[in-house]
Amino acid sequence: MRTYFDCIPCAIRQVLDSVRMITDDETVHEQVVRAVLGLWEDIDMRLSPPAIAQQVHRIVRKITGVSDPYREVKDRYNRLALEMYPELKEKVAASPDPVETAIRLAIAGNIIDFGVNATVDEGMVAETISRSLTDPLDLEAVRDFKEAIGQAQDILYLADNAGEIVFDRLLIEQMPVENVTLAVRGAPILNDVLLADAEAVGLTDLVVVIDNGADAPGTILELCSEPFRERFEQADLIISKGQGNFETLNDCDKDIFFLLRPKCAVLARYLNRELGCQIVVRRGGELFASR
Amino acid sequence: MRTYFDCIPCAIRQVLDSVRMITDDETVHEQVVRAVLGLWEDIDMRLSPPAIAQQVHRIVRKITGVSDPYREVKDRYNRLALEMYPELKEKVAASPDPVETAIRLAIAGNIIDFGVNATVDEGMVAETISRSLTDPLDLEAVRDFKEAIGQAQDILYLADNAGEIVFDRLLIEQMPVENVTLAVRGAPILNDVLLADAEAVGLTDLVVVIDNGADAPGTILELCSEPFRERFEQADLIISKGQGNFETLNDCDKDIFFLLRPKCAVLARYLNRELGCQIVVRRGGELFASR
Repeated sequence: MRTYFDCIPCAIRQVLDSVRMITDDETVHEQVVRAVLGLWEDIDMRLSPPAIAQQVHRIVRKITGVSDPYREVKDRYNRLALEMYPELKEKVAASPDPVETAIRLAIAGNIIDFGVNATVDEGMVAETISRSLTDPLDLEAVRDFKEAIGQAQDILYLADNAGEIVFDRLLIEQMPVENVTLAVRGAPILNDVLLADAEAVGLTDLVVVIDNGADAPGTILELCSEPFRERFEQADLIISKGQGNFETLNDCDKDIFFLLRPKCAVLARYLNRELGCQIVVRRGGELFASR
Repeated sequence: MRTYFDCIPCAIRQVLDSVRMITDDETVHEQVVRAVLGLWEDIDMRLSPPAIAQQVHRIVRKITGVSDPYREVKDRYNRLALEMYPELKEKVAASPDPVETAIRLAIAGNIIDFGVNATVDEGMVAETISRSLTDPLDLEAVRDFKEAIGQAQDILYLADNAGEIVFDRLLIEQMPVENVTLAVRGAPILNDVLLADAEAVGLTDLVVVIDNGADAPGTILELCSEPFRERFEQADLIISKGQGNFETLNDCDKDIFFLLRPKCAVLARYLNRELGCQIVVRRGGELFASR
């Protein structure tokens, strides 16, 4: 997906959030913001928003020398989600359709995205989880999803954010785990999930976890490592979680299920869906047909 | 008031609103946005937000050739406010304290500001008016205001936006009109008020109306016309309406009453007040003492 003009104010807000997490020094804020404005002035708008975010946050790291400003936020949301995990696991088990319930919760977990909204808090997470169980969901796509995970021999699950991966775990537990590989980002970017997060929430004990070798908040194949790209090619089913993975893979010619909440007006308009709705859609499905 | 980093995303959003009112041609949007990003990259952040907006909208006019994209919006809100006027005038007259009620309504009218929020609609205006009569207001400042307008021989009332000036009219009618001069902008900028708007709502029949000779969404004295500056110097009381006039005059060494609603988080934080509250404050008053 290309970048839209409305992404620009949002991206500048995002970089301000990041640099303020690093330092209170306004001269640093100014240096970063001016460098990012310069980048945007000449940027190729055909790039996806995560591809631009990658360049932007490289500037932040270069100027501040801080590689992972979201480490604390990631730890906090991993812990928060792990505290919720036992109760949610029971909810899934007790549900008449555990896969559907787990999909709902996995999508709800996508609210924990500090790239889109730095004001995420525990109340928002709790409310989103609670609404997710009754909010509309494409049940035909859910049936299709269940069939696909039953048939696939090699499933690659692309995780999105820390904290959120605990909710992904609920869904992965409903899948044939021996067939599932989980992919995380290759280096810190926003609150996106890293190997350390997958370990912290016990996912490395459940499935094979690999990293994609890249520092973008999405999956930009040409920037990922060679081993990851091979793994991606080889998979017969991809499960793509979240907005950044959607924005970078929506034109990719593989069998992909996208699970996400559109959290900004640009993506909601692109998808022709409501902001904050629950989306499960297969690449080539109805949502794509209408485009 | 200087410009803050958070003004940057908002200013880019504002310029997108403007250029989209002018044309659907995305190549023009892109040309404008890139030029504005270039301007911001090197801008002096000690300038006030309206001083930067002035430069930004000059770029819009230069690239698009359109001088007044908000003309239709201004006409619409003048008409809307004029439709409300008879009922509100009765409300003021029937009120136990007509000046206080007129101040409340004049501040409520400040919601009609397409610079801060292009999604203003009639419902928001109606709701703001309705709340304004009971929302908290500094009644000591109101008493002070009444005393000051009784004593002043030469009052200069700096208007802000089209539509809003109908609400200003309710307040001006409570003042000794022979002592009042109303000032409007010198050239089109956002939905700020021009001489044509003052005429359209009958204010030219009530008081002397002058323009300030400038195209900024505020009152930047050094950029105003010589006659306006003389008139400003000569006045013994200034009534400054709205956010843009506040942001450009808050450091000015005159006797000024500021009437406004802070409509963005930056100004609310600067004032240490709630977003969207009603403010009437005299320069040198408590709000300034705490700074």
